[in-house]
Amino acid sequence: MTTNRKIVLKKSPEGVPTEEDFELLDDEISTPDTNQFLSKTIHLSLDPYIRGVITGRHIYSEKVNVGDTIVGRTVSEIIESNHPDYQKGEIVLTSNGWQEYGISDGDGVRKLTGHQGRLSTALGIMGMPGLTAYAGLMVYGEPKEGDILVVSAASGPVGCMVGQIAQIHGAKAIGIAGSEEKCNAVKNVFGFEDCINYKTENIDHRIRELCPNGVDIYFDNVGGETLDIMTKNLAFNARIVLCGFMTQYNLSTPPPGPNLGPIVGARATIRGVVVYDHYDKQDEFISKASQWLQDGKIQYMEDEVVGIEKTPAQFCKLMRGKNFGKTIVTM
Amino acid sequence: MTTNRKIVLKKSPEGVPTEEDFELLDDEISTPDTNQFLSKTIHLSLDPYIRGVITGRHIYSEKVNVGDTIVGRTVSEIIESNHPDYQKGEIVLTSNGWQEYGISDGDGVRKLTGHQGRLSTALGIMGMPGLTAYAGLMVYGEPKEGDILVVSAASGPVGCMVGQIAQIHGAKAIGIAGSEEKCNAVKNVFGFEDCINYKTENIDHRIRELCPNGVDIYFDNVGGETLDIMTKNLAFNARIVLCGFMTQYNLSTPPPGPNLGPIVGARATIRGVVVYDHYDKQDEFISKASQWLQDGKIQYMEDEVVGIEKTPAQFCKLMRGKNFGKTIVTM
Repeated sequence: MTTNRKIVLKKSPEGVPTEEDFELLDDEISTPDTNQFLSKTIHLSLDPYIRGVITGRHIYSEKVNVGDTIVGRTVSEIIESNHPDYQKGEIVLTSNGWQEYGISDGDGVRKLTGHQGRLSTALGIMGMPGLTAYAGLMVYGEPKEGDILVVSAASGPVGCMVGQIAQIHGAKAIGIAGSEEKCNAVKNVFGFEDCINYKTENIDHRIRELCPNGVDIYFDNVGGETLDIMTKNLAFNARIVLCGFMTQYNLSTPPPGPNLGPIVGARATIRGVVVYDHYDKQDEFISKASQWLQDGKIQYMEDEVVGIEKTPAQFCKLMRGKNFGKTIVTM
Repeated sequence: MTTNRKIVLKKSPEGVPTEEDFELLDDEISTPDTNQFLSKTIHLSLDPYIRGVITGRHIYSEKVNVGDTIVGRTVSEIIESNHPDYQKGEIVLTSNGWQEYGISDGDGVRKLTGHQGRLSTALGIMGMPGLTAYAGLMVYGEPKEGDILVVSAASGPVGCMVGQIAQIHGAKAIGIAGSEEKCNAVKNVFGFEDCINYKTENIDHRIRELCPNGVDIYFDNVGGETLDIMTKNLAFNARIVLCGFMTQYNLSTPPPGPNLGPIVGARATIRGVVVYDHYDKQDEFISKASQWLQDGKIQYMEDEVVGIEKTPAQFCKLMRGKNFGKTIVTM
């Protein structure tokens, strides 16, 4: 334990990132100042929004420049503390980013005391993706008994939670995902009613078949053509929850969106969910989700690799849509 | 009074309609059956939605086919009645369409007893366009003291009412219109804070100048590029009310819409207004609007021609955006 291995941005990616855009460096381990602690990363979360941070398009994070360590949420163990509120040995949710050790002043840190299930789930279904799903669905989607919900990127940590939480509330969940394997998991692991493979099936035809009366809630993680098709398959008073734009994170300029005429016809409402607005629901969410997890009502899948050096390849795989479950690097 | 002059569809228009798409015919005046009345058209309303009806794209009206009389709301005087609820001499709002005389069974008819102002306003600011403005603004726009509202097609009957009603509720109204003359009227007749001439000015620059903190309510009557620009100039928690798609009524296929990323950033809500959903607000609206009209708080402008034979030219002018105020044909 004398070096801190970290991954920095080597050059700004064009389109889909490649491993050559990143570089593994050895650095010294920093020493915490007063009111700081040093923690060792256990699990690192890889998320599509990081692509936007690298481009400088993510409005809530400072841009990652060439030479900077890439950012990211981590589950970490405190190994040295000069902060009165944090003790050595405590496990925390923090933001060490793509490195083995990190310094924090406690800002945005959450202790994982009493955490249910595997620690890594604090980065996935029990963490920010889980809260995104919960808040977006409950606040804007308003699922009711008998509603039909469609969610894209259904095998991911947000998508799988959206469908499972909707079903707990009496809605029927239909997923959209990008491979047979993902669709099988959406149906068999997460218990969705059905799942459409957008790579081999015609979404429009399948949705008309599965939801002849239209879709009550469309939870969108992808944007693009799928969003366009879904706007044309809405039930009266439908809700579209805009959550992610996976189809455009790798593009340099945002493409046009769906024609909004059908929104008027269906009297639909479009709302965007940003998880930062909903931290007031975090305790409620964690308490409910812990119970659901314990009762076997929610399942999860992780796409995990071990070793910080595998982070760039794992991130590039995520950005090509080749991940399968919540993407984690365990150090 | 032995013939009923009427205008029928001669051929289906391609793009912007021309006078050659219509034909003036002489017909016999029909005789009302039991539970019907015959009325003589006084004023006919011309509205952009009629273009959609002709194409068969308007989901609330049956398509107008070649040979059919074009549809439209009218202010008419009952000249013969076999309907117990309607008497000869009564003035009603009905749907005679593009003809001098029409038969009705009373369905969708409203008596204009106690109507304030000129009768033709029952087709404009005191009629469907007025109710559209009122319901769309009050139900979905929710104007508050100090809000900044932008409305497109601001000199039209919906747009001018949206801005005037918003101002009555303490909001600042900014219009977008298509000529210097229209912009002057928006500012000087309707009292808007300002008006952008989209034909000669850069909407984006002007909006940034006029609303540096963004727009709280965008009431959209046009769609297209203006809608796209406005989604990028929203204040936090902004409301977009989708009301009309003037830029696309003449197109055969709906064009793409705005990228919806900015909706998430601004936490904006998009809702569509369809006047048919809000007839429960009609009495409330007419009572308020009558008072506003009497108090000089709302003004109106009409683009009127006299003689049914001028209807096709007047409609084509409207569909080219060359009208100026609520478009009326007086018989």
